[in-house]
This record gives sequence, structure tokens and C-alpha cells, in this order.
Amino acid sequence: MSILQFFSRKGSAPVARDRLQILLAHERAVGGQNDLVGVLREEILAVIAKHVPVEPDNVRVKMERGEAISTLEVEVDIPSQAKVRVALSA
Amino acid sequence: MSILQFFSRKGSAPVARDRLQILLAHERAVGGQNDLVGVLREEILAVIAKHVPVEPDNVRVKMERGEAISTLEVEVDIPSQAKVRVALSA
Repeated sequence: MSILQFFSRKGSAPVARDRLQILLAHERAVGGQNDLVGVLREEILAVIAKHVPVEPDNVRVKMERGEAISTLEVEVDIPSQAKVRVALSA
Repeated sequence: MSILQFFSRKGSAPVARDRLQILLAHERAVGGQNDLVGVLREEILAVIAKHVPVEPDNVRVKMERGEAISTLEVEVDIPSQAKVRVALSA
């Protein structure tokens, strides 16, 4: 199944705002590194925040730690005026 | 469908090496920013390379630009000795 189907399954109507989604998974071999997802999480959020406004109410972060796979889901709603790098303070 | 099913569908046998997968999608509103995925690609690869050895033959990067959605898929096989930060030069 291509990644496009995974994302577009969340609703086919045109979206009113841009949306950025990141799914990260670390599949571990026996005895592999354990917390790579936790390590990458902050740095990936910092990379995103350099390019789009990331405020508490427009970002959702979810981490799941399974036995063999740990995952991180980040979803950011991008306000339409976001093209102006300096967001107007509320 | 939870993200775990998306990743674990790629084979249920325990993996011999750690594997890191990142799926990134930018769903654009009409007239939204166009190349956010291209902008984020290099910086996310740089974040990964800080923590695991990223060599040409153990990383696969795929970008798809659709009308409403652009996606980036990154898959990194992590050599089992990767815990030693300084990889032994070949």
C-alpha cells in the first residue's frame, strides 16, 4: 500500500488549511538501540518549527513504544497566513 | 488503522538489524505552501545522521509530489554495531 493511501484515508475533501504529518518508526533487532524515537522526537520538532509556526494548539504528538517497534506520530495544522515567517502575535 | 499496522505489514519475522522509517506528508490547502517536503528533507536526514550512521547503501529516500499531497519516505537500515557512534571505516 503506498504512503499516499495511508494519508489520504483521513478524509478526501480538500483541506481548508495545510497539514503536515510525520510518522516515524524504529523497528528494533533483538538487543537493538532502544530509545532512538525519543532522541529524534525533539530534534525533528525543532526542524519543523524552523519552517512553520508550531503552537501547542496546532500540533499533536503521539509516541507508542511496542516491544519490537516504537513509533512517533506528529501532526501539525499550518495556519494559512503561515507563509509570512513572522506570525502575527495574538 | 494505527501506524503500527502500517509499518508491521512489511513482514512479521523479527528483523536482523534495526530499521528506521520516516513517512512525511504535506497536505496542501488551495494555494498552500508548495515545497515544504523538499525543504524539510535535508534537515531531517541531517538529524538522523547525527544519531545513526547513514551511508548511501543503507538509506533509501523517495519523494512523491501529488496535486494535494507531497510525501517523503526515508528508510534507514542501522548496522548492528551502530551503537558505537564512530563507525569503523571500511
